[in-house]
Amino acid sequence: MQKIKVIGVGPGIRSMITFEALEAIKGARVVIGGKRHLEEFALPGQEKYILANNLEEIAAIIRGRREEGVAVLATGDPGLYGVLSFLKKFWDPGEIEVFPGVSSVQLAFARLCLPWHDAMILSAHGRPSGGLAELAAQSSKTALLTGSDNPPEKLFKLLENTGPERKFYFCFDLSMPSEYILELKSGEIYPEELKGRHNCVMVVLND
Amino acid sequence: MQKIKVIGVGPGIRSMITFEALEAIKGARVVIGGKRHLEEFALPGQEKYILANNLEEIAAIIRGRREEGVAVLATGDPGLYGVLSFLKKFWDPGEIEVFPGVSSVQLAFARLCLPWHDAMILSAHGRPSGGLAELAAQSSKTALLTGSDNPPEKLFKLLENTGPERKFYFCFDLSMPSEYILELKSGEIYPEELKGRHNCVMVVLND
Repeated sequence: MQKIKVIGVGPGIRSMITFEALEAIKGARVVIGGKRHLEEFALPGQEKYILANNLEEIAAIIRGRREEGVAVLATGDPGLYGVLSFLKKFWDPGEIEVFPGVSSVQLAFARLCLPWHDAMILSAHGRPSGGLAELAAQSSKTALLTGSDNPPEKLFKLLENTGPERKFYFCFDLSMPSEYILELKSGEIYPEELKGRHNCVMVVLND
Repeated sequence: MQKIKVIGVGPGIRSMITFEALEAIKGARVVIGGKRHLEEFALPGQEKYILANNLEEIAAIIRGRREEGVAVLATGDPGLYGVLSFLKKFWDPGEIEVFPGVSSVQLAFARLCLPWHDAMILSAHGRPSGGLAELAAQSSKTALLTGSDNPPEKLFKLLENTGPERKFYFCFDLSMPSEYILELKSGEIYPEELKGRHNCVMVVLND
């Protein structure tokens, strides 16, 4: 049986994928991924399916087409709040081959020139934000994935009082031409013009 | 002033570096890194310095040659127990450009088909192992970098009783032809023939 390839593509640009991940995508007949990743990485002859809130449908496609070679593109690293946990509900570890990639969390810390092995990594992307403030309060270094349900301005409000003198870095559109990093302290005003932008990794530090 | 480029090369083989990291290495006049990484990634015309336990000497080289373009190769990701913290003692974040890479910890979890955002990441590579058992006892998923001072057999002894029913994965020589993964439970015997091999990422799980 062919293994299902779950491929970390990094932040989403060609210069930040690994050589082996790109080769693995090339070898697949069916490529599944976010719209932006399919445009960037899939080849003209490949069959493409957009991965969105259609996980059950995607599972059915994988089941039907597996023997032809299926690649599932994961943003960043598949092991960091990615599609992997979902796929493991249906397939055994031995049926899945994971290709690691550079996560947006790693890129955020790279831009800030900070080590991250001591960071707590949380996600509010497509999941409830309850409990996040309590978790972040326990850690002196937190990375937080945001999303449309939980945009950075909302998470800032939620987290700004979790500790004394906290420093917030909002890393927008990492690796893209529109990349922008905003620094705020607890109590400062979140800029009106950035509200609504939610492709953002937040890094929260004790000052 | 030229920035000092700190470049994550991934586990150490060409297929697992990003395109931008490889380009950044090519652009440097002086390349500093472990012997194996220099052999794999530095070009014939480049000046090479081996990074070992000679950090002060390396800092002096960087200071003297910075304007010519200096690349420091970091195993895996520079932000994960890498050379970055050392360099930041001498240079400001604005003087350093960090290129993220795939860490051996990510590769270990990829091989085990496990997510890792909820893992505690610890290192016993070139540092004392005191306190590790206490830290690992708090976490249901721990990744542990080993080293010659703290080889996996020693850390297994130290950690096997940190919780009931713990499962240990020893991931040796990840990405290399000699890659090998051993699975043990608390109380089982560490194989004699693997003693002395310390290029290993340990993953410890509550069963």
